[in-house]
Amino acid sequence: MTAASTAATATATADYRDLERFAAEILATRGVPADRAASAATALCYGDLTGLSSHGLTNLSRLYLPLLDDGRVDPTADMEILTDRGAAVRVDARRALGLWAASEAMRLAMERAATHGVGLVSLRGGTHLGCAGYHASLAAAERMVGLVASNCGGQRIARPPGGLRTLLGTNPLSFAAPAGDAHPFVLDMSTTVVPTGRVRAAARAGQDIPPGWLADEDGSPVTDPAALDRGDAHLLWLGGQPETGAYKGFGLGLMVEAMAALVSGSGRGSAPEALDGDGRPSGTDDDIGYLIMAVAPGTLRDEDDFLADAAETFGTVLDCPPADGSRPVRYPGWAEGERAARGLEHGVPLAEGLHAELCQLARAASVAPPRLSGGQR
Amino acid sequence: MTAASTAATATATADYRDLERFAAEILATRGVPADRAASAATALCYGDLTGLSSHGLTNLSRLYLPLLDDGRVDPTADMEILTDRGAAVRVDARRALGLWAASEAMRLAMERAATHGVGLVSLRGGTHLGCAGYHASLAAAERMVGLVASNCGGQRIARPPGGLRTLLGTNPLSFAAPAGDAHPFVLDMSTTVVPTGRVRAAARAGQDIPPGWLADEDGSPVTDPAALDRGDAHLLWLGGQPETGAYKGFGLGLMVEAMAALVSGSGRGSAPEALDGDGRPSGTDDDIGYLIMAVAPGTLRDEDDFLADAAETFGTVLDCPPADGSRPVRYPGWAEGERAARGLEHGVPLAEGLHAELCQLARAASVAPPRLSGGQR
Repeated sequence: MTAASTAATATATADYRDLERFAAEILATRGVPADRAASAATALCYGDLTGLSSHGLTNLSRLYLPLLDDGRVDPTADMEILTDRGAAVRVDARRALGLWAASEAMRLAMERAATHGVGLVSLRGGTHLGCAGYHASLAAAERMVGLVASNCGGQRIARPPGGLRTLLGTNPLSFAAPAGDAHPFVLDMSTTVVPTGRVRAAARAGQDIPPGWLADEDGSPVTDPAALDRGDAHLLWLGGQPETGAYKGFGLGLMVEAMAALVSGSGRGSAPEALDGDGRPSGTDDDIGYLIMAVAPGTLRDEDDFLADAAETFGTVLDCPPADGSRPVRYPGWAEGERAARGLEHGVPLAEGLHAELCQLARAASVAPPRLSGGQR
Repeated sequence: MTAASTAATATATADYRDLERFAAEILATRGVPADRAASAATALCYGDLTGLSSHGLTNLSRLYLPLLDDGRVDPTADMEILTDRGAAVRVDARRALGLWAASEAMRLAMERAATHGVGLVSLRGGTHLGCAGYHASLAAAERMVGLVASNCGGQRIARPPGGLRTLLGTNPLSFAAPAGDAHPFVLDMSTTVVPTGRVRAAARAGQDIPPGWLADEDGSPVTDPAALDRGDAHLLWLGGQPETGAYKGFGLGLMVEAMAALVSGSGRGSAPEALDGDGRPSGTDDDIGYLIMAVAPGTLRDEDDFLADAAETFGTVLDCPPADGSRPVRYPGWAEGERAARGLEHGVPLAEGLHAELCQLARAASVAPPRLSGGQR
């Protein structure tokens, strides 16, 4: 176990391939077919592998197994193509597991992009897709650029600037592009300042949050993360206050809603029948909409020229002289790629509590627990 | 002249259609063919009509006429289709006037979207396109959603977070969707906190800017707008500081660079041969890349359902109870639509200095000056 892979609270290091095996076997115990479970497990473990652990295996017992057990996810539902225009396809995911369906949608978009230059899959009936960046990165791995926009179904978390009612989810947007021999560029962002997971993790840990994430009715900063679910503070859009770009973040949230929900006809946080809220987060993330797009530059210009220009663009960022010599300049996706490379070689750090939880899941499901590496067992 | 159309410094009110006539005639004196000049004039006057006056007629003498007079814009260049995949087309604009070329590209994207569900035009060799939101809004007017991403060619304005070298432009991103009987949703944003125009306008006016737009080497806020071009401060990305999302804004800037420049093969701020900078804005916005996309929801689902869902989504924003009863809740594009409706009926407010400048241009070019309305002459 290397020093670099030891976070303050992480004392277990798991073998990455065995984590995938474990996650797939657990999903299979809920009726998810084996090939689908394997695809979903890769999407899920990407969170732990890249350090985005709030979207990793911790969500098995917190999110995906309850969704399966409650019937909100249908483990065997086949996606139905509703309209097929060649370059663009509209799909009903029929509550299939989002971790799998989003990857399938990206694979379909890439297939269409290879023929038409661009491929677009508009999906309704979706469920939680995990890390949007994982699905976008599938395109980058095949010398394409990929875009994933997902709304949050009927979930209402954030308010318009100056408004009292929650209307939209945190509406993630992701985009990926190859970067030559360097780790791919992967932007994966909520359109709010932070996703709710970061606020709630701070609340669970009893830690204050920085000013600029939450505000009270008067717009003053709130640093107590528990204020969000108490309804005493609301989550700000990227940009923070109006004079520093709140309408841009809100606009990006609406752009994702239009791309993902209005094109597909999925559920929407702003549907009037759902507007029972009192300013607190409410609603459920059922019937999520995605817009998943791939563009294949190699069908439009010389592919080697595209790849060389991409390598140069992102390489120039890595070569930018830093203001602080100890903090080299990086682009989104670089640190995640670096952690993934380390995790594949040396094992994936897991918080001790998460490891214990996964072992308990394994016992209950009669599945072998995740294998630890580096002499940790 | 109504009170609402009187800004502090605007004392002239011009007839909108005559402003378009004037702008088209001035462009025609520089060799721009009449139909092209008319299309460009509409794009240009959209800035004045909607209140985005930094991107309106003020740019005739500041930007477009010098570009034409210096040969950086070719008034008669025809756009060349380099690759045509049906849904996706790659185009060389060959230095044609961006105000016209971006609209033409959107019209082509919409034509392809009507057949294929999605239409994408990847353009290199572009020049300054004016308000990106105008070109995006062409799609919304035809019951489609439109996206416009433009890089800034070889211009370098903003630095990566923690970096000392300017690498990218302010890389605008725009998206438009219909909103039923209400004004369309039009997001039109630089991926930096503000565009440079806002900073330089404050510098010219001798006004301080709010903290959060510029920062010095140590990351401390700078409120003197002149510090930008002195190289004593740099423009921040949307999100501001790293803990409030600077990497999201930077990531959006890189996303636009990848969409607009890497797919098309246009100029790039980060091209190594251009990296002579010292942390100050530098380079020129020649060989700009655009990615212009339309999605036609009516080809994928029932169009009336799409339009009803869109009207409902944006209507719910307008109906959101406001925190301050005197400030109703709005979405990006609403205020611009309201100003446009007012301007069409009552005339477009023009700053007195701008009006004098336009009259001078008119005299020099032997063109009739803009006709004032409301008894102002």
